[in-house]
Amino acid sequence: MNLSNYIRIVLVEPSHPGNVGAIARSMANMGICDLSLINAQHTLDADAMRRASGADWILKRAKNFPSLDKAIEDCTLVFGTTSRVRAIDWPTLSPEQAMKKAVQQDARLAVVFGRERNGLENRELDLCNYMIRIDVDEEFPSMNLASAATILCYEFRKAVLNHESQTVELQNNELANSKQIAGMMQHLESTLQLVEFVDGRSSRLMRKLKRLFNRTQLTQEEVNILRGILTSVEQKFNR
Amino acid sequence: MNLSNYIRIVLVEPSHPGNVGAIARSMANMGICDLSLINAQHTLDADAMRRASGADWILKRAKNFPSLDKAIEDCTLVFGTTSRVRAIDWPTLSPEQAMKKAVQQDARLAVVFGRERNGLENRELDLCNYMIRIDVDEEFPSMNLASAATILCYEFRKAVLNHESQTVELQNNELANSKQIAGMMQHLESTLQLVEFVDGRSSRLMRKLKRLFNRTQLTQEEVNILRGILTSVEQKFNR
Repeated sequence: MNLSNYIRIVLVEPSHPGNVGAIARSMANMGICDLSLINAQHTLDADAMRRASGADWILKRAKNFPSLDKAIEDCTLVFGTTSRVRAIDWPTLSPEQAMKKAVQQDARLAVVFGRERNGLENRELDLCNYMIRIDVDEEFPSMNLASAATILCYEFRKAVLNHESQTVELQNNELANSKQIAGMMQHLESTLQLVEFVDGRSSRLMRKLKRLFNRTQLTQEEVNILRGILTSVEQKFNR
Repeated sequence: MNLSNYIRIVLVEPSHPGNVGAIARSMANMGICDLSLINAQHTLDADAMRRASGADWILKRAKNFPSLDKAIEDCTLVFGTTSRVRAIDWPTLSPEQAMKKAVQQDARLAVVFGRERNGLENRELDLCNYMIRIDVDEEFPSMNLASAATILCYEFRKAVLNHESQTVELQNNELANSKQIAGMMQHLESTLQLVEFVDGRSSRLMRKLKRLFNRTQLTQEEVNILRGILTSVEQKFNR
């Protein structure tokens, strides 16, 4: 079975090649082969190959991108991962909830893992529809990157296998992808500046709006309607 | 939370100290601290300590036994692990099924992992009540020992937490109520008429927008932001 049509594992600036190799092995165990890297180095070194333990074709096929937005352009659902309970309350799912959702939606899914030390930056979080949080003991919350990825690959496979053994209503095959959403959010921001609802400094408000629309999982038709509204407002002003 | 009353992780003749260290870390993440070893060597070496990444108290407390029967003497339920579909059909459970069973029984549980290369021997299998099999891709079934242990510790914690309470997808405490949503939708409609995006007959389009915002489960803060945007547009026009 090949699940690669469904899920892409994205590692942002992984610092330990051994972790990348271990993740390749776990991906292969779970029938997943689409690995993308952001600014990764030495991912084919001896430690990576040893930990991949035969799953080196995944390392060799992995694409390296300069920034996260490029790596997820064609995805319709993007999950970030965190072990922290963040101040700003991003919509957060358990691994099981997240993977059920992705499989039920027949999403083109990306699961994004941050740096071993610092996780994901805000501009990267802004690209995520949901955060996944693995529930860990608060007295020892620091998970190994490869362990976290193993758990999510495992839950993804479980969700796919459960889905196949059940009949579940499928819908939403026309979900907007990340690029279409990003285009709409830019259009929204420029229109809000036009009507003087925000100025150039209102990043906090724009993040709240982004969070709202990321959570909603807009269809392509809805994106077209919302952009139509923005265009109407612009035309009224520029007339 | 300390789950150590419930589960003991048992590693039979592990050959890579790094794996033992990584397992200690995953155990600590999941609130598990009872580790037993059978004929293990070098489990406090540099590689083990590095991979334990601070969870070295688990390594230091671990007991080393000469044979499996001594390590599980006080347990009421013993699970072995395998990635193979064995000729002799041992009663086999998925990780999720197994951990639910253990928690429901309030068992004193041992989960036994075999050697990296050869797994468990028959005399060791004979000591197990059930086998746990992680479903893996048959084209690449060889799992890393630490990855398998991570998944089982994770499923155990999940079973305990599920048993204690159900997790909820969204924090519902500040969700907007129906009246607030209806007020916002009226505001939206009148603004869309103002910018001539819709006229009085566009009920189909308004229904699509309603569907979008109903699906989203807006918070009260989000309703306030969206109405703020609409008010800005109105003010611009009425100036």
